Amino acid sequence: MRAAGLEHGGRLEAARRRFPGAPSPFLDLSTGINPTPWPVPALPPDAFTRLPEPEQEAALRQAAAAAYGVADAAMVAAAPGTQILIQLIPRLFPQRGLAVLGPTYAEHAACWRAAGTAVREVSRFPDLAEAPAALLCNPNNPDGRRHDPAALHALADRMAQQGGLLVVDEAFADLEPGPLSAAGLLPHPALVILRSFGKSYGLAGLRLGFALAAPERAAAIRDALGPWAVSGPAIAVGHAALADAAWRAAMAERLRRDSARLDAMLARAGLSPRGGTLLFRLAEGDAAAWHERLGRAGILTRPFAAQPRWLRFGLPGDAAAWTRLEAALGA
Amino acid sequence: MRAAGLEHGGRLEAARRRFPGAPSPFLDLSTGINPTPWPVPALPPDAFTRLPEPEQEAALRQAAAAAYGVADAAMVAAAPGTQILIQLIPRLFPQRGLAVLGPTYAEHAACWRAAGTAVREVSRFPDLAEAPAALLCNPNNPDGRRHDPAALHALADRMAQQGGLLVVDEAFADLEPGPLSAAGLLPHPALVILRSFGKSYGLAGLRLGFALAAPERAAAIRDALGPWAVSGPAIAVGHAALADAAWRAAMAERLRRDSARLDAMLARAGLSPRGGTLLFRLAEGDAAAWHERLGRAGILTRPFAAQPRWLRFGLPGDAAAWTRLEAALGA
Repeated sequence: MRAAGLEHGGRLEAARRRFPGAPSPFLDLSTGINPTPWPVPALPPDAFTRLPEPEQEAALRQAAAAAYGVADAAMVAAAPGTQILIQLIPRLFPQRGLAVLGPTYAEHAACWRAAGTAVREVSRFPDLAEAPAALLCNPNNPDGRRHDPAALHALADRMAQQGGLLVVDEAFADLEPGPLSAAGLLPHPALVILRSFGKSYGLAGLRLGFALAAPERAAAIRDALGPWAVSGPAIAVGHAALADAAWRAAMAERLRRDSARLDAMLARAGLSPRGGTLLFRLAEGDAAAWHERLGRAGILTRPFAAQPRWLRFGLPGDAAAWTRLEAALGA
Repeated sequence: MRAAGLEHGGRLEAARRRFPGAPSPFLDLSTGINPTPWPVPALPPDAFTRLPEPEQEAALRQAAAAAYGVADAAMVAAAPGTQILIQLIPRLFPQRGLAVLGPTYAEHAACWRAAGTAVREVSRFPDLAEAPAALLCNPNNPDGRRHDPAALHALADRMAQQGGLLVVDEAFADLEPGPLSAAGLLPHPALVILRSFGKSYGLAGLRLGFALAAPERAAAIRDALGPWAVSGPAIAVGHAALADAAWRAAMAERLRRDSARLDAMLARAGLSPRGGTLLFRLAEGDAAAWHERLGRAGILTRPFAAQPRWLRFGLPGDAAAWTRLEAALGA
């Protein structure tokens, strides 16, 4: 099975054990989850009590298609979070081998390996084309590397020629300026795109994610998940939030200002900006010492065992959080 | 893949199209979902905004172990609804062939067949022992047939001897009087038990279900689902509700009275009681005509294409629903 215990952000319980003397509550900057969630209204009781109906799930997929720029809801599969799609796709679409553009989100390689696929990490985009199948995150986590749709189109065509697969994880793409998403390339026989709802909308606990693919592949994913895979609350909230283009535009503007502010604040503390997205910033410097010092101040950041000089920061969500971070950075 | 379009209850949107002149709102008696849900309190915002932490999921599994009579949370896997477990288990634990005690919930046979397993439906419990692997629902849906733990123990041992599997779906067992559940047989190498949260607690939209199995099997299921499979709201509500033994006891008492009342009411209308559980009753008679007549009165029931004289009734949830059903039955 998969390797247990991959590192992840957001583990406040573990942080409390690691930094027992830290002031409470912890300020969690260890994830790329928007600290300003889409405002969830009171949900109708039916969302909790009744099984979601096929028509409600279809309307959610329609809203996702519109928000993501996919022509037809037949090219959308909705899931209880993207992770379960990351678990499922290697078993559903087995490949002779997979190249992953890294370093990146570690669950992808772990799940492909657990399914028996030989995985090779490459650091250059062109090297992906040499493998039977390819996977990248766009923009990448944690460094924000981006690839434009034209380059992705060529790679997807290459994979299609050899009967392979191109998986593009667009978990952090929703609020980014374009051109970025490969969604406009669909239907493409080799392409599977993943979109996460929880990160951009700040509602990771709701568990909602999508796969976008040609109709046959999307139907295979829906069939593997089965009926009622997505909860009533996730359908109700996801449908309304995905239709809220005004909120997305205002949020992107706010996050543009905040991410620039965070880069500047980190630079003043001697941490060099190393990229990122509107939802997290990667900094380079004395990462272990800063992780420790900030942890003791009750601020959780995300180190990377394989990149010991990297430290990832999520965005502070309010004035108190900014003040607290600024004080802890001494910047 | 799996056969599309299996019949299911709870499809009010379809019922509105089928019975366009029916009074609104529909009274949905087509499912076995408790019409009186466990009372969901206001949920903490973190349940929606943050990724569930491993410690929270572990506490949910501990509460499930205690409620279901399993000695150790290591024998519990939590999932976003039982259906996804029904989809997963045939691929995770492949078998040379499977006997299903039928007629029963059709998703089981469909998912095993979709995974490539030859499935045979048998009508007698002893015939299950002839197959490489076996599956039954206890109590059964829709007829309420029950099997005691001693019989299940012998069958599980038989499956273990031949390296097979016994899946027992206890979706409707929570509120039933014992002895019934096979949970006390765990850890058993051949046994996988499924428990549904949504039906007994009346919260099917929340999507929460469990697999109970020996630690190695339970860990394999958890690994296949991956981290964060269960939503924050499902963890918060599930944890509190599973710990609420007083609610379960009072609800079982109420449902005993209500199910007897429903049987009597159906009998007065010429529909013979044919079994059931505390959450639904099966009646035999002129099912097609009653389904049609009740549908036109805005009351949705559950017919069965393969058993044309059967009609399943969920329990009315309040005085208005009882009055409406009684009037429509002319009883």
